[in-house]
Amino acid sequence: MDAQQKQRVVIVGAGFGGLTAARRIARLPVQVTVVDRKNHHTFQPLLYQVATAGLSPGEIAAPIRWILRTSSNVEVLLEEVLDFNLEQKKVITKDQTLDYDYLILASGATHAYFGHPEWEPLAPGLKTIEDALEIRRRVLLAFELAERRAASGQGEMPLNFVVIGGGPTGVELAGTLAEIARHALKHEFRAIRPEQTRILLIEGSHRVLGTYSEELSQKAKEQLERLGVEVRTSNLVTRIEPGAVVIGEERIPAQVVLWAAGVAASPLGRRLGVPIDRAGRVLVQPDLSIPGHQEVFVIGDLAALADESGKMLPGVAPVAIQQGEYVAKTIARDLEHQPRRSFHYHDKGSLATIGRAAGVAQFGNLKLSGYFAWLAWLFIHIFFLIGFRNRLLVMIQWAWSYLTYERGARLITGSNQLPGWTEPPEKAAETDIPAGQSRG
Amino acid sequence: MDAQQKQRVVIVGAGFGGLTAARRIARLPVQVTVVDRKNHHTFQPLLYQVATAGLSPGEIAAPIRWILRTSSNVEVLLEEVLDFNLEQKKVITKDQTLDYDYLILASGATHAYFGHPEWEPLAPGLKTIEDALEIRRRVLLAFELAERRAASGQGEMPLNFVVIGGGPTGVELAGTLAEIARHALKHEFRAIRPEQTRILLIEGSHRVLGTYSEELSQKAKEQLERLGVEVRTSNLVTRIEPGAVVIGEERIPAQVVLWAAGVAASPLGRRLGVPIDRAGRVLVQPDLSIPGHQEVFVIGDLAALADESGKMLPGVAPVAIQQGEYVAKTIARDLEHQPRRSFHYHDKGSLATIGRAAGVAQFGNLKLSGYFAWLAWLFIHIFFLIGFRNRLLVMIQWAWSYLTYERGARLITGSNQLPGWTEPPEKAAETDIPAGQSRG
Repeated sequence: MDAQQKQRVVIVGAGFGGLTAARRIARLPVQVTVVDRKNHHTFQPLLYQVATAGLSPGEIAAPIRWILRTSSNVEVLLEEVLDFNLEQKKVITKDQTLDYDYLILASGATHAYFGHPEWEPLAPGLKTIEDALEIRRRVLLAFELAERRAASGQGEMPLNFVVIGGGPTGVELAGTLAEIARHALKHEFRAIRPEQTRILLIEGSHRVLGTYSEELSQKAKEQLERLGVEVRTSNLVTRIEPGAVVIGEERIPAQVVLWAAGVAASPLGRRLGVPIDRAGRVLVQPDLSIPGHQEVFVIGDLAALADESGKMLPGVAPVAIQQGEYVAKTIARDLEHQPRRSFHYHDKGSLATIGRAAGVAQFGNLKLSGYFAWLAWLFIHIFFLIGFRNRLLVMIQWAWSYLTYERGARLITGSNQLPGWTEPPEKAAETDIPAGQSRG
Repeated sequence: MDAQQKQRVVIVGAGFGGLTAARRIARLPVQVTVVDRKNHHTFQPLLYQVATAGLSPGEIAAPIRWILRTSSNVEVLLEEVLDFNLEQKKVITKDQTLDYDYLILASGATHAYFGHPEWEPLAPGLKTIEDALEIRRRVLLAFELAERRAASGQGEMPLNFVVIGGGPTGVELAGTLAEIARHALKHEFRAIRPEQTRILLIEGSHRVLGTYSEELSQKAKEQLERLGVEVRTSNLVTRIEPGAVVIGEERIPAQVVLWAAGVAASPLGRRLGVPIDRAGRVLVQPDLSIPGHQEVFVIGDLAALADESGKMLPGVAPVAIQQGEYVAKTIARDLEHQPRRSFHYHDKGSLATIGRAAGVAQFGNLKLSGYFAWLAWLFIHIFFLIGFRNRLLVMIQWAWSYLTYERGARLITGSNQLPGWTEPPEKAAETDIPAGQSRG
């Protein structure tokens, strides 16, 4: 092709997929524009550490334009994409339209509340830095409000934290919350005993970490219970109200409810006007392009593609990263007028951590659990953290909190209100507690 | 006194004064309650580093109950104090009343907009972590929006940042903003040149750092100008509107306006029903108690007291800390039925930093400026940071950004809107820019 008129590549979303694609494509003789609603890339696997006050946001997120600063043919725009015009090859944003020769849609996924949007304010999910800070605020505030209540002679009120969803995020949150209650906050309160906090992990299916082997699911459950988490599988949440979670006939009082149950693909997928699956993911071709538009790729959590065995690829970072690399290679082959190959996912294994020095790992036939799984998790994740500086700081933070049990970022910022705490429903929650406790 | 019925000391506010008092009084045979609206103590001298993305909130703030965790006779309450009943010796909070034998009011100061509360949303001040994050958001967002505008062909728009108030905070903010624009963000933008950002420091009096010697004020001005800051003294702001600051007849377009001009004492001072000065500070006795109530002390920024020479004590950390220590000693003497002594402030000197490797310091007759003042500032402040862990991390952050010019916490969280940017007044600001530039 003529290098004078460089091809324009627009990448929507700077998660693992979009960022990987941008870094690789930057090496080609093309003009790249990365568009994201946030100015920063968030290292999602460590987001639960921000939500549980172990790390500061700045340690797991870095400005997108800083990450891409050395690629002079890449521009980064803080923009909200609204729509596409595939015929005229345009991306329509809130403030402008961007022309493209290649479009890579990597806008990821968001929370799904199974048709109950009213649950969102009561049970925040964990996708963004803002989500993590809101969860941190609620968790820390619950202890403060309980201490205040007890100190003012209104009587001690047992704290119940409910995590809904037994996938990796739910398991990580529940495990870390147990640690905080049992260790980090111990000796810091005078009127309440944080170590008596009940932490429930509610999972709809018959086991946690459903994508892992039955054996590792069992191991994960045992490790969670050792940490003091009540794991309740085959439990479907029927209602969430201020101060309580309802499972069938049972009403569980809960000062903090966290949502780790469902994700839905980014609504931008629908704007492409091509077939999507039930979760709103775009059904892509073997080359990750969409039907009728070889120049439009969809990657990461937003793409729906089956592997050789016909199993759908999971919405995890390794898939997004490999798809980002693949799309870069594919565009390179296009520029050299070589035929496209189809995408193949190489499963290097999966890892989940369960609080302090516990976890499960699955690498092909090799299965790890406990301390070694945790170590593997720790080093792999810190290795992949964006930017040396963050890696170093995270290592120090980790070493520190491992040695001292301390959580470095226990700040409550923003409002001092909790849903269902100061409002009337709280009273209901109170009267329900004996029942709640009798189950404990 | 009878140790069976311990005296109850209530401390309102966990800033430098309240926290110091709590730590010292905890050693006495008394029961201490610390009440604060926030769960964390904020190390205010480094707050400007959070506002300018150099440090994360978790690195300059620590949970109050964590700091006081080892003192079992100290309880910490997250509470908002509303009023007092001095006759019945009660503190009235939002949720309860607290009895006291001794009351120490250390609720500090807040921003003062000189009777223009409408300026606050347009020109945030810097007192809390939330303030710092809001300033960080606005500063980083201004560059992003300018890049977006330029990239979309709407033409390059020179960025103007205006800092109002030439005290230590204003000088620190202006100096650091200049650094960010000239160094940290260089090479990261494609459509705009951050190094062309105009940074104005507006001071009403005839010199910056008015509490320092004329000589050091001059040195500070020179260092600021070397960093690229336009220092305008004897300039009084008459109006702030979205996108602009008005000084007399002159209207300066400004995408970001920061307020470092005035502080007002906490409104709680008025609730004591004793004489206050124009700034709302409580006129305390030589022993820092209030007239007619030996058992009620007011310390820190909320207290108005003159030194030997009749000069009012400044609202700085050393004064608050020494007053906290003094009150602890005084209560100890009361318990031993010894007469009270009056408070004397020992001025150990003052320090201000001006961006990277620049600053001014005044220790008695010793005056430093430039690199050595900055070094002194750096080590003194890191030394006083609460908690070893934070010290270590801040040191690393500092070393890192000193070597690389990088800012570690450049995250935009929350809204992507700026006042006066998307609203109509922005247009006005645009048309005014040539005029603004011609002055440059």
